[in-house]
Amino acid sequence: MIDSRWIWRVAVLFSPALAALAAPPQSPVADSERVQAHLVELARFGANPEGGVSRVAFSDADIAGRTYVKGLMEAAGLDVRLDAAGNLIGRREGTDPRLPTMVVGSHTDSVPHGGNYDGDVGVMGGIEAAQQLRDRHVRLRHALEIVDFTDEEGGLVGSKAMAGELSAATLGLVNSSGRSVRDGIRALGGDPDALAHARRSSGDVAAYLELHIEQGGTLERTHTDIGVVQGIVGIHWWEATVAGIANHAGTTPMDQRHDALLAASELVLAVNAAATELPGRQVATVGRIQAEPGAPNVIPGRVVLSIEVRDLDAARIEAVFERIRARAAEIAPARGVSIEFRDLEATAAPALTDTRIQRIIDSAAHALGLTTLAMPSGAGHDAQDIAHIAPIGMIFVPSVAGISHSPREFTATADIAHGVNVLTRAILAIDAAKLDR
Amino acid sequence: MIDSRWIWRVAVLFSPALAALAAPPQSPVADSERVQAHLVELARFGANPEGGVSRVAFSDADIAGRTYVKGLMEAAGLDVRLDAAGNLIGRREGTDPRLPTMVVGSHTDSVPHGGNYDGDVGVMGGIEAAQQLRDRHVRLRHALEIVDFTDEEGGLVGSKAMAGELSAATLGLVNSSGRSVRDGIRALGGDPDALAHARRSSGDVAAYLELHIEQGGTLERTHTDIGVVQGIVGIHWWEATVAGIANHAGTTPMDQRHDALLAASELVLAVNAAATELPGRQVATVGRIQAEPGAPNVIPGRVVLSIEVRDLDAARIEAVFERIRARAAEIAPARGVSIEFRDLEATAAPALTDTRIQRIIDSAAHALGLTTLAMPSGAGHDAQDIAHIAPIGMIFVPSVAGISHSPREFTATADIAHGVNVLTRAILAIDAAKLDR
Repeated sequence: MIDSRWIWRVAVLFSPALAALAAPPQSPVADSERVQAHLVELARFGANPEGGVSRVAFSDADIAGRTYVKGLMEAAGLDVRLDAAGNLIGRREGTDPRLPTMVVGSHTDSVPHGGNYDGDVGVMGGIEAAQQLRDRHVRLRHALEIVDFTDEEGGLVGSKAMAGELSAATLGLVNSSGRSVRDGIRALGGDPDALAHARRSSGDVAAYLELHIEQGGTLERTHTDIGVVQGIVGIHWWEATVAGIANHAGTTPMDQRHDALLAASELVLAVNAAATELPGRQVATVGRIQAEPGAPNVIPGRVVLSIEVRDLDAARIEAVFERIRARAAEIAPARGVSIEFRDLEATAAPALTDTRIQRIIDSAAHALGLTTLAMPSGAGHDAQDIAHIAPIGMIFVPSVAGISHSPREFTATADIAHGVNVLTRAILAIDAAKLDR
Repeated sequence: MIDSRWIWRVAVLFSPALAALAAPPQSPVADSERVQAHLVELARFGANPEGGVSRVAFSDADIAGRTYVKGLMEAAGLDVRLDAAGNLIGRREGTDPRLPTMVVGSHTDSVPHGGNYDGDVGVMGGIEAAQQLRDRHVRLRHALEIVDFTDEEGGLVGSKAMAGELSAATLGLVNSSGRSVRDGIRALGGDPDALAHARRSSGDVAAYLELHIEQGGTLERTHTDIGVVQGIVGIHWWEATVAGIANHAGTTPMDQRHDALLAASELVLAVNAAATELPGRQVATVGRIQAEPGAPNVIPGRVVLSIEVRDLDAARIEAVFERIRARAAEIAPARGVSIEFRDLEATAAPALTDTRIQRIIDSAAHALGLTTLAMPSGAGHDAQDIAHIAPIGMIFVPSVAGISHSPREFTATADIAHGVNVLTRAILAIDAAKLDR
């Protein structure tokens, strides 16, 4: 494991000016009680009996929740508008109108039976940062926008639209709200026929920051306050088909079988080994498996399974897959079966965060006496789309027990406040650092 | 593999009288053309486009096929009747009315999309044996009955009724004919309210013989003419549940997982190893597996799989399961999961054939210049129920490529004739051997 303090010291040694910028003496401090109160209030919209929320995008709860968010933005002195994709945007002008906008974003929609922190912490944290800047009469050179993106859980809809990457096919998808993405955007107040107006180009956004819960257990386990996200991992999906011969489980001797499930079981173990035997933090998972015909008294003749590999480095994803394929080439003849792989479309390229912003976040945390860990984001975020048009940075705060997408999702008030403080410092540092030059 | 010729020599050495009885000089020889013609004619009832039959019990095709079988029985000089279970019985009286009846049986119903040999060979072969005895004016001391059992494929309905073991619950089951077993028995001409009349007691049946296709590939692979069945294997089913923790496949590091599918894959391999590492012909199969939640991007939290073990020896079935359970006890803590086993009801006890009848069948085959192999039946047969009330014997003939329950099921005419000749000789030998003493 990398000692983040050591990295910070190197950063300070080699970038003294940057380190100084990251720690302005009178940096505002979040009102942790207020942030917590806002999160509690937001959790009323779509509250479920288990203590979490079912605030699926485009549902009545989502629409009502966003009206509440709009009010908080206005109270923080932001000018609020909706773009054509339904993204809710609170804006604060800067002192230099020639500079592009700094954007802080996340989302307030949830998965069905979700929790109260995924996305919410980033939007409430962004609004708190804007509130602090206003309360302290801090002026920024760049305009600042706090964005509550449309339908993150359903496929990063709002952020994809902002990056100009929302597909026409996605507009037709219907989620559990009962609305299609097209009708949902309209229900939020957007205009799905004018999505080009929501699009931002390279150069429009000076930098993008997102504060988010980790959704994994690494920060908690390592007793770290802040995760400095190195990037959002790329995801590659394959489907493997193992073809043997279905046969009578009573009359076929053990040495005469072409059992597809035996070969598939070895393949499942090979997928795991391919990820764990290489150095690094790549992950590989078989989440879905189907054996046919699927009767207790018939030897399986065909097994189809999913393979997912994630890493920050696309070449490493390929290296893991090559190990899996090589192992499959040994398993197939030994078990008397064939194994074929098919590339699936659901593939995301790795989205790296800007190394300058990583250093700014790390320095800001250390100036506040917080510990940091450089880490990948294993989950997808709105930031990954915005990475295509702007330098991005992400700040993680600990998830208790790594639980997410569950009513049991939890992050402590103090940890959220740490994240907001780092976010505010990073905003100030980026504003001063002129990344856009 | 046991050298069956050696066994035969031992049998002849130690049972010279028995061997002599098994090979009467003028033993009748089957008319292989006639048997083949009857099989072809029977295959017209329920013929399917793939060249097999869909003659599911109680269907119109089944009823029509049995009318054809009844005609063949009558032509062979048998007195034909239906018992209350719908079993079609052709009877020939013996010279000694004090002796119990010898029964030769099998079935003419099929699975959906089945073949033309499973069951049919035994019924047509039994009728041919009776025809030969009549044509040669051979009188037996015992009465002889040729039985076409009701609904074998749906759960050995007719033979269970004959053994007094048909459950009330089975009567309510509806098969793909659209009829319940109760209504089906009535449609065949039986009386489901009088099943006690179909029941035979211990002592009513001198011996039961069944000629059947192997439904496996062992005889063909070993170039053996006749399988001398040692018994019908017992079948034990368990359900194993592997409980881990479902989690995010992106944010959960490899060393923090409780992946139920990894443990289940090791268990599948352990089931196979438990059967193959012990000496013997036991078989063990995982035919069904289900991983939950079953999404490519979620680590499986729960896997349920079936385990089936078959062997002639119930103690060996338990021994195989104990090896599986011991291995599970190692896998579970290593993978951070729990593994629990549940006994399922679908369990059949092994049904051993009578060793005297095994010797008679073996001797009969060798007297005809045929090769034999002592082997278990991995599939279930009507004989397994009758074993509870009488000594049983089974004669297997080769299945090409071991294929069964398929239109591609095939056994050569010459192999069928060999089976019928062995059956006829065995009938004569048992009639002389006075097994019932």
